[in-house]
Formats: sequence, structure tokens, C-alpha cells
Amino acid sequence: MSMNSFGHLFRVTTWGESHGPALGATVDGCPPGVPIDEAMIQHWLDRRKPGQNKYTTQRREADEVKILSGVFEGQTTGTPVQLMIDNTDQRSKDYGDIKDKFRPGHADITYFQKYGIRDYRGGGRSSARETAARVAAGGLAREAIRALAPNVQITGYMVQMGPNRIDRARFDWAQIEQNPFWVPDAQAAADWADYLDGLRKSGSSVGAVIEVVARGVPAGLGAPVYGKLDTDLAAAMMSINAVKGVEIGEGMAAAELTGEANADEIFMGQNGPQYSSNHAGGILGGISTGQDIVVRFAVKPTSSILTTRKTITKSGEETEIITKGRHDPCVGIRAVPVGEAMMACVILDHLLLHRGQIGTNRGHIG
Amino acid sequence: MSMNSFGHLFRVTTWGESHGPALGATVDGCPPGVPIDEAMIQHWLDRRKPGQNKYTTQRREADEVKILSGVFEGQTTGTPVQLMIDNTDQRSKDYGDIKDKFRPGHADITYFQKYGIRDYRGGGRSSARETAARVAAGGLAREAIRALAPNVQITGYMVQMGPNRIDRARFDWAQIEQNPFWVPDAQAAADWADYLDGLRKSGSSVGAVIEVVARGVPAGLGAPVYGKLDTDLAAAMMSINAVKGVEIGEGMAAAELTGEANADEIFMGQNGPQYSSNHAGGILGGISTGQDIVVRFAVKPTSSILTTRKTITKSGEETEIITKGRHDPCVGIRAVPVGEAMMACVILDHLLLHRGQIGTNRGHIG
Amino acid sequence: MSMNSFGHLFRVTTWGESHGPALGATVDGCPPGVPIDEAMIQHWLDRRKPGQNKYTTQRREADEVKILSGVFEGQTTGTPVQLMIDNTDQRSKDYGDIKDKFRPGHADITYFQKYGIRDYRGGGRSSARETAARVAAGGLAREAIRALAPNVQITGYMVQMGPNRIDRARFDWAQIEQNPFWVPDAQAAADWADYLDGLRKSGSSVGAVIEVVARGVPAGLGAPVYGKLDTDLAAAMMSINAVKGVEIGEGMAAAELTGEANADEIFMGQNGPQYSSNHAGGILGGISTGQDIVVRFAVKPTSSILTTRKTITKSGEETEIITKGRHDPCVGIRAVPVGEAMMACVILDHLLLHRGQIGTNRGHIG
Amino acid sequence: MSMNSFGHLFRVTTWGESHGPALGATVDGCPPGVPIDEAMIQHWLDRRKPGQNKYTTQRREADEVKILSGVFEGQTTGTPVQLMIDNTDQRSKDYGDIKDKFRPGHADITYFQKYGIRDYRGGGRSSARETAARVAAGGLAREAIRALAPNVQITGYMVQMGPNRIDRARFDWAQIEQNPFWVPDAQAAADWADYLDGLRKSGSSVGAVIEVVARGVPAGLGAPVYGKLDTDLAAAMMSINAVKGVEIGEGMAAAELTGEANADEIFMGQNGPQYSSNHAGGILGGISTGQDIVVRFAVKPTSSILTTRKTITKSGEETEIITKGRHDPCVGIRAVPVGEAMMACVILDHLLLHRGQIGTNRGHIG
Repeated sequence: MSMNSFGHLFRVTTWGESHGPALGATVDGCPPGVPIDEAMIQHWLDRRKPGQNKYTTQRREADEVKILSGVFEGQTTGTPVQLMIDNTDQRSKDYGDIKDKFRPGHADITYFQKYGIRDYRGGGRSSARETAARVAAGGLAREAIRALAPNVQITGYMVQMGPNRIDRARFDWAQIEQNPFWVPDAQAAADWADYLDGLRKSGSSVGAVIEVVARGVPAGLGAPVYGKLDTDLAAAMMSINAVKGVEIGEGMAAAELTGEANADEIFMGQNGPQYSSNHAGGILGGISTGQDIVVRFAVKPTSSILTTRKTITKSGEETEIITKGRHDPCVGIRAVPVGEAMMACVILDHLLLHRGQIGTNRGHIG
Repeated sequence: MSMNSFGHLFRVTTWGESHGPALGATVDGCPPGVPIDEAMIQHWLDRRKPGQNKYTTQRREADEVKILSGVFEGQTTGTPVQLMIDNTDQRSKDYGDIKDKFRPGHADITYFQKYGIRDYRGGGRSSARETAARVAAGGLAREAIRALAPNVQITGYMVQMGPNRIDRARFDWAQIEQNPFWVPDAQAAADWADYLDGLRKSGSSVGAVIEVVARGVPAGLGAPVYGKLDTDLAAAMMSINAVKGVEIGEGMAAAELTGEANADEIFMGQNGPQYSSNHAGGILGGISTGQDIVVRFAVKPTSSILTTRKTITKSGEETEIITKGRHDPCVGIRAVPVGEAMMACVILDHLLLHRGQIGTNRGHIG
Repeated sequence: MSMNSFGHLFRVTTWGESHGPALGATVDGCPPGVPIDEAMIQHWLDRRKPGQNKYTTQRREADEVKILSGVFEGQTTGTPVQLMIDNTDQRSKDYGDIKDKFRPGHADITYFQKYGIRDYRGGGRSSARETAARVAAGGLAREAIRALAPNVQITGYMVQMGPNRIDRARFDWAQIEQNPFWVPDAQAAADWADYLDGLRKSGSSVGAVIEVVARGVPAGLGAPVYGKLDTDLAAAMMSINAVKGVEIGEGMAAAELTGEANADEIFMGQNGPQYSSNHAGGILGGISTGQDIVVRFAVKPTSSILTTRKTITKSGEETEIITKGRHDPCVGIRAVPVGEAMMACVILDHLLLHRGQIGTNRGHIG
Repeated sequence: MSMNSFGHLFRVTTWGESHGPALGATVDGCPPGVPIDEAMIQHWLDRRKPGQNKYTTQRREADEVKILSGVFEGQTTGTPVQLMIDNTDQRSKDYGDIKDKFRPGHADITYFQKYGIRDYRGGGRSSARETAARVAAGGLAREAIRALAPNVQITGYMVQMGPNRIDRARFDWAQIEQNPFWVPDAQAAADWADYLDGLRKSGSSVGAVIEVVARGVPAGLGAPVYGKLDTDLAAAMMSINAVKGVEIGEGMAAAELTGEANADEIFMGQNGPQYSSNHAGGILGGISTGQDIVVRFAVKPTSSILTTRKTITKSGEETEIITKGRHDPCVGIRAVPVGEAMMACVILDHLLLHRGQIGTNRGHIG
């Protein structure tokens, strides 16, 4: 039992702090024979990398991943894969003036209260920098999925920034890669650019909602009660820094529906069951239906802002703080590849769990 | 690793089906010396029990719990506690006519696709009847918490039924026990009674949002990354039948806030840090702040309704179905004690985890 | 993480005390579709049952197993299987006179020191009666193995009782079921009967060594470092009451060998690799070779004897004790079916783990 | 669940291969505030380091540990500690000629059968080089124990090399550090030097028995059934490369004893219970008694010897092999610090588990 691990059979343990020498992911349980190299993982890391445009923190990190174990002659061996990323742009002096103050909205105070020790350098272990390790592990998971369930496609995108929501009528998968916000709506992307630039200049920040969809997931993944696919997805997404809510399918809005409006009717398609709608988000009773798996999560606004805020020091004195570090006006942007990575890890894990308990035979309909 | 277990040190494994001879919870890791007897657990079970008023299923179950192990002379021994509940009102013939049809919105189809076997009797393992075992385990958890953190109070209530929300200005803790919906708003309770009665008579159903608050939780519970208190709460609540969304503090609405509006400022109170507000829901960086822990979850409407719905059979033929069983017009009502039970289990688990890694000394402020 | 559980994917949690109302095993992760009923499990329980001959305790327990969940229409459903055994012959008054004294060699004193509570009724949770639950779980495991690896045969037998060892030259599988000691050597069985009868009459007891062999296990089961097949077997056997040593293949005697004498040479047989010998006990680097898996474990003598022994009371006074309960002169006898059950659980677990991570393709030689 | 992890709350995951760029241990769950630096861990690694005398492999590895995370300003922070050791003397060309042959007694063949992939460079993941990571983790565990149970002392030593056993009458703790075999018997150390030198020159190898003792362990550590202290110790020791048997206290010899001879009588000492003897090895019912914890394990002889052996190739052809690499004539020597490290990890883990479930209050006698 490790508090810094996730997954059952595909088991990822991340380690490292914002300003230590390195961070990484120790991945155990990957199937052997998966073709992988550093460039394949780097592809995903580059999407999360800071400093790529004016909307993300100006910390410059190469985020270069090294594979230290578990891969031989271009394939996974089935033994632990160590994915390490050196920290290169640490500038810990930036944080000297907040050494004894707790930043409101950050984990500074709770880490100190729990552990009696505070790594004041950029949040230490609580920094969102940890998510680089998840993205690396997710890159490996994607390649492993390819062998097991080649039709799976995992895509994340932003559907809300502050009060602004996308227009689902304009939804276009092709737009996602065309703008810095991963928004599937060209008009929204244009509008939000001005909005966020204004916030950035004023030293403020704003929250966002990210949606991650997994298409092509076979029916039958997940398990009862606490091994539900949606249970693991909820945990995976809520474990991402700054996330405050997670929804599957209709999500919180399911509360407003009647039974008639909510339950997806079932028909018989050429390749098995089909549904009239997907209010369920691809999961019934914790087990995948074969429809798209649809997860959304809300990311709160960065708490590092240029407005002066009231706080206290380690010795309990009241004081004020202003956070001048290099930060993101909307951390939700960089949460998109992180959400995708978590989805990939969960899907792979449940593919392996299902194969372990049941093999490949399942209940065949029709 | 058990898919039917939750918790790390306070580990609950539930077992049993809707229409088998019995169901229960095997609870390992409970501290020794906790005073407990069947009546103390029955108290909580009686709140979840079906058939208590016209708004819940008319299935009549005594839901009498028996303690089969782990308790000696009125105290827990520290060894596994087996909490068993006999099923007494099974009437499995009720389900004969849907034996080969999959009920839309239910887990019938996914269980069949996963396991190749369908226990058609009331949903088998996927039935919400499983939550009785959770409530029993939660009753034990509450007593164990009392010894470790006597100020903890856990209370659940309904804040939304269908499109109707409570008025927070009328919030009154004392009202919660005064109405069949566990609503902290007397006016809402009155209004919703008529609303739900109408739905019930028409054979329809509706969703709900439940809020569970834990007051008096000490600062410092939770752990980084995947052992976050909010991660475990999200998993715990999402694992409850029919839940489609989970929120901590501001929840999904955090996306709409700016950094200035969201981050709770910190002051120094007489007994430690205090906050200007609780947007965080009592959790920063996955660790409790000492403020109220606030969790909400959305329960979808019961899919068993009297309207005819399109579906398919096990052999893939299209057909129609109407579900005439004994069901709840708003299952959200009975989810209130279940949500409380899950909160209790998570809080106790993290009290034990914290004591295990760190003991009682923590970072003291001021 | 449950201290009363074992296995990774085939996960068994046992519960119950010697003199409580019942005990049992909660089994999660069993593959679905395994044909099973109570009689199939009873078959194995009957072999462990006390009171069957003069060499085992005269406590009379029917040890009748009930399946309370996880089985529908004669097959496992893939959800938790609850196997419960009622305690019927509890006679807890037998233990009244030792209520405040710690029996030397028993866990009375350590349970009290750990938990601060002592269930004095026959050892409570520390009683060997717990092993009935393991045997029930092992019975289920055997049936599940049949579907996955039909050639697997698991057989336990006694190879040493006190100072007496079997003569391997007389080893005869057919003898094992022909005598009350499960000895594969007819001459030894005859000789030991007199020896043990003498011990029994004098109120003494003696230890034993049990060997458990699994034949027909496919090559490739097990995993590196802490998931080794021999690691899990060592844990499984050491967890049985009164076991003080575990050996794989050569075991402790491996220390005496040279590299030339120890390493089994490899040849090519018709169905794959064959070996000149089996010093390894069927396991290399923690992974099965396809040879017989050979495990031995030593069971200490029952500490309940008719000789007066020095001990102390709960209040720390020195005193004497004599244990007049119903006990086994050689508990090793009843450890045979328990060792078989643990072997079955471990083999099944690793079959599932292997299938989960790797599927059915493996490195093919030749 | 990670096959390359051990421990429950103090959770160690090792990674890396014999000839990859690096190997290490990811340690989660360490208490915060433990004073630690690289030199303190290096102290223990230096004891296991190869190439220190003529009795161990001539591979030259600095085995320099780097702490990459989890330590800030000289203390553990409570978050994951990454301990990395670079491989510097890899010489993988040494292994070219055995690339397609399976070395008898090694894991080459089983890893290939399991994973379908063979890292032929020095055994890859199955190499005893992995134990360096355990020793590093054990070094950290020792420092953490110091704060929790300052009287604990963990010492390993060799008690048998090939057919030669120490004379317990000459047992002298002070001798252990005075000879290259960690033998507590000066006479044996002298005799065995000649014996092993002869074996080394002839290109042969021999097995050994190591004993590890933990003194000063408080009573009450361990838990029922599968969380027994001896269960975890058996697993910990059996997981070490080349180990074939594990004993607690009397071990396999317990089989020969009568109940009178085996059960340790209990007296009342000044500081609590005392025992007439320690046949139990400090553990009753899986829980520590407060006496010395005594564990022994047998290490088989290195299978890499200069004698030609029969084997097969990956394509199934029969052939011969001679292993000319740099190897240990008695790997048991270097297993001593590894056994100590495993003992330290298990003791710390159970200290934390006990504190988690029970706190500091225990059943007080007298």
C-alpha cells in the first residue's frame, strides 16, 4: 500500500518534488513486449511541458524523460520501468521570501500540519510538477493499450474556462490540436484567448472544466463495488492537483433528470448492443458498456496570484502574501494531457484486471 | 487487492447479492477496545432500511445485523469483524419475466457482458441492497472514530431533488431528522413531498444531490498524490450505486472562479488557523485543513420505472420492458445514510494511516 | 491491505474465532463460471475435520460449509464468495480455569500484549480452527484451477513425525490416503501409529514435517522480487498456525551443496525443457520451471500438554498451568489438508496474475 | 499491488537490472523527520559491495547511492524517497557468448518462458545486483526505527558454509565484524577461509546459512493470519535471490521436539514477562514476544561455476555451457547485509502498522 501509487495491476508510483534533482514514475506490471522508447514518451510530455506559450508558466523545463529500467532492445521486459525526468530550472531562491508564510489555497499549510516539515521550494511534493511523471506513465500505458485493445482512442479537451463554455453544436475533434487551450470549438478558442490574456496581465487566474473521452473501449471492463471503472476514474481525476469535482456521463446534472430521460435505451447493432443515448457516460454498474467513456473534472484557479492576500506564518503571526513566482493563469490547460494520462492508466489497468480474472471470453449477446 | 474492498487500514470487504441468503461486510483493521454491539450498528441500518415510508421501495427487509466475529465481551478485539444481514423478503419470482431482458440503465447488460453469467434476481451483486453492508461497516467506523477524534460529527442531507434545490439561507441542521428526505430546509421538505408523491404515482423517478459534511476532523489527514483525502472520498462516493458525480467544496463550480475568489484566506484563531471561507471544502493538497470536510454527490434517477422502454434480450432480439418491481421514486433518499457511512469509513481510515506514519505529533502552528 | 487476507487476484480474507458463532472465508476475484457447490467444498473440509480418529482433537465439529454469495445456478458469478462454517461444539466453559493464565507456547500472551484484550475461549482468533476457512477457500481454488490448468495436481503428505522420517525409497502416492497420517510410506504409517499412541496416552505431543507437491504447473508462474512464487508459498505456509520453517526443493540442505551438485541440468524433452534433477523444487528466480513444485514446512508440537508448566497471569503473578482441553497429539496431521489448500490458493492466484499481465503467449522454446 | 514491492506501510519498490544504467528503490511511507543523508545509507551499501575481497565477485561497482527525493534539509519529509545507484562496471560483452543459452540453476529459462524476452546481460532483473536497492532501503529503515524503538538492534551473521557449522559455544558478537564471512566464531572464520579459497580456485561454489537476529523489539508486533510477523519475515527472506529455506526460532527442527521440550515457560521479570528459553524465535501466534527475533535462511550455491554443464538454447537445441563471468564462490556472504536490510524493513513496517491500528497503548502485564 503506497499513498503515492495508483493502479491495481498496472501500478504507477510517482516520486520527486518541484525543486529536487529529479522526479519520476516507477511503473510495475506493464505487459512485456510493448515497443517503447524515450521519444514515444517524450511526445506526450511535450504537450504538458511548461513555457510553451504565454498562457502557461514561464518556468523552462526540458522535461526530458530517461528510461532507466524495464526496457531491453526496444521492448518492455515485464519488469519495473523507471521513467526519470531531471529538474533543470529550479531557481529555488524565487521562493525565499515566502519561506515561512503559507500561501492561501496551496497545500503549504496542510503539509506542514501533517508532516511538521515544509519544503517551501515551489510546493515540494504538492507541486503540479508531479504530474509530469503521470504523463510519462500514461505514455507507456497508451502503447500497452495498443496491443490489447487497438481501437481505444483517448482524447482530452477543455469544455469550460471560467464562466465560458463551449458550444457543443460547434464540437470539432480536429480543432483540439489547433489551439493552445485544447478546445474543440474554434470560436471559443478565439474568444477565450483574449479573455485569458486579460486575466494573465492582471495577475489573476481562473478555473476550467476538462473532458476526457475514451472511445473504442470494449464492454465488460470494471468490477463491482470498489473496483468500478468509474470509481477508479473518479479517484484518478480527483488525485490531479487542483481538481475539485469529477463527473461521469451526465454527472451532477443526473440529479435533475427523471428515469425516463436518463436511462439509455438499448438496441441491437451489427456489432452488438447499441444505445439511444449516452447519459451513462459509457458505464453501467461500474462496468463499461462499449460506448464512449466520458469523464469531466473541474480544475480550480491557480492560487498563486498577484493580489495581496491575508495569511499566517509558521509561528502563527498574521501577515500578508503576494505570490510572484512563475505561474499559470489557467492551470486547467496543462491538466488536459494529465487527464488523458490518467484515463490511459485506468483503462490499461482494467484491461489487465479483466484478462486476469476472466480471460478473453465474455458474455456474448446475439 | 480485492475489487469488493475499500479502505487501506480500516478495510471493508462487502459480499452478497440482492436475493441470496444473506449479505455482509468483513471488516479488518478495526482498532481493538471499541465498545460495540448489534444495537449500535442497527441504529444506522434502520435509517437506510427500505419500506419505511411511501417514498422508498416497499420491499420489507428487517435488515437485522448479526456480529459473527471480532467482538468479545462488548468490545472489538482487533481481529476481523463479520457483520451479516439475512435477506428475508426475497420474492425472486418477481423478476421471472425480465429474466432474459436487460433493464435499461441497470447493470444487467454489463454484468452479463463481463462475466457471461446473469443473476437476474433483482440485480444480484449490482443491487443497491449491497449498501446495507456499507452502512453496517460505517456504524462500526463511527464508534471507532469516537475514541480517536471525539469531536468528529458526520452528517448527510439532501440538497437537491430533481430540479429543486434547498435554500441555503434556510439551512437548519435540526430539520434534517424531521422529514423523510433528510432535507435541512423545512420549506423544501414540504414542497418536495408533493413533488415526489406525484412522481411516485406516475411510476416515474428522479435524481438527487446529497451533501455529506464531517465537522471536527483534525488538520493533517490525507497523503500525497493517490492517498489524498479527497481522492479517497471521490472513490468512496462514486462507488455508491447510481452516483454520477462527486464534488469537494466548490466542486464543479470552482471552474468559474478566479484565484482571488477561490483561495480561502488564513487567519489565526484561538485554537489554530482559521479561514475566511471554505471554498476548499476542508481539503488542501489532499490533506485536511481542520475546516468542515464538504462532499457532494449526484444520484441518478432509478431506472426502474413504469414506462415501457426499448431493450434487447440475451440472444440479441429487440424487445420492450416495463419494470414492475418494488422500487424507490428517488433512491437519493436512501443514499444519505450510505454517504455518511462512506465518509465515516474514509475518515477513520485516514486517522489510522496518519497515526501509523506519523503518530500524534504534527506541525504545530503558533 | 488486510492483515487477515492473502492472495493478490484470488483474494481470501478469513474471519472468525474458535468459540464465536461462526467462521468463514470471504473470497474475492474468483473467475466466473466455475462449477461449484457445497458438497465439492465439504469434501476437502472433511479431511481436516477434528474428531475423526484417536490422533486428533476430540472436539466434535460438523464443519458444514454454507455458500452465502457469489454462486448462482451452480456456478461462480465472479463476485465475492462467502463460505461460512457454524461453530457447533464450543464448550467455552472448558477454558474457564485458564481465563487469566497465559498458556506457554500459545499466542495468549502476545494477543493480550498487542490488543489489550484476550479472548480466552480456545485461543480466539489465534486458534487453528481458523484453518477450516482456508481449506474451504482452497476447495474453491482447486475447482477454479481445473478450468485454467487442468493438469495441476496438488498433494500433501507427512514426511517426518518427531524424529521419524519416511524412507523415500518406499514412497508410494497410493499410500497417502490409506493411513491417518497422510504418509506415503506404509511401513512408516504402521510404526508411527504406535509411537503417536504412546505420546497421546502420556498427554504429550510432537512436531512434524509436511511436504506439498504441485504437479503439472505450467512454466512461467511467478514474478520478480516480491511476487516470486516461492515468496508467496513461503508466506502462505508460514502463516499456518504452528509452522516454524518452510523449504523449497532442497531447502535448508541447499547450504551444504556445491554449485555442481545443486544446479539442475537442462535437456530437451518432447514437450519442452526437462531437467536432470529437481533441487530447485520447480522454481528458478521465483518463476515456475514446469517441474514439480515442492514445498515443505515444519509444524511445532501442540503446546497444550498434560504436563504442568510454569507461566504468569494477566496481573503478572507467577503460577503453573496444565492444559486439559481437547487437543491433537500431532497437529501436523491436520496441517496436511491446510498446506494443500494454501498451495491451491497460491497456484490459482499466480495463474490469474500471469494471465493478467501476459495473457497466454509465453516464450516458446524449441 | 506491485510484484516488485514489499511492505505494507513502509513500502519499498525496487527497480533496475544488472546491466542497465541504474537501479534503485522507491520508498513510500517513511515517517517524516528521520535524519538521513547519503553517507548514512552508503555505510550499509559498502558492506554488500562486490569486489572487496577475494571471496566475492570481482565486478567493481562503486555502489554510490543518490537520494533524489523525499529528503529536505537532512530529514525525511514523509513523501517518497528515491534511492538510486548508477551501474558503472557493466561489461555486457562478458555475456555475449551465453546470449542464447540458458544457464542451469539461473532464472534465464524461466524469465524467457514467462516474458518471451531475455535480458541476457548478467541475468537482467533476476540478478542479485537488485539486492543493493534493498540494502539502501534497509539503511533508511534502520534510521527510522531508531526514532520509534531505540533499543532495536539488527545483526546478521553466517552460521553454516557448506557442511561447516559454527560452534555455538564459541559464539561471540564481537567477531562478526572481524572476518570476511560475518561469522561469530573466530575459529570457524579461520577454518572456512581455507575451505572457501580452495573452492574458489577450483571454480566451484557452495551454499550457506545466514541467521539474522533482532534484539530489543517490543512485544506486540505482528497481526493474525496473513500479517503475522513471521509470515512477513519468511516472505522477505525467501524473496532474496538464491534463498531456498527460511526458519523462525527452532525452524525445521521444531518437528523433532515434544510439546514439553518446545514451549518456552514464562516468568515475571523486572520489566515484564521473561522466558525460560526461546524456541519460538521471539514470535508466538505471529506476534512478537519481546524476546530476540531469530530468523535463518539457506542460500544455495552460485550456479555460475567453471565446470561444463548441459543445457539448451532458446531454439531448443541441447548444448553445453561454462560460466566464465565474475562471480562469488559463496554468495551467502553478501546475503548477510541483505538479510539484515529485510529484517529492518519488516520490523519498521510492523512498528508503523501497530501504531496505526492500536497506537501506543497495549495490554500491560503486571
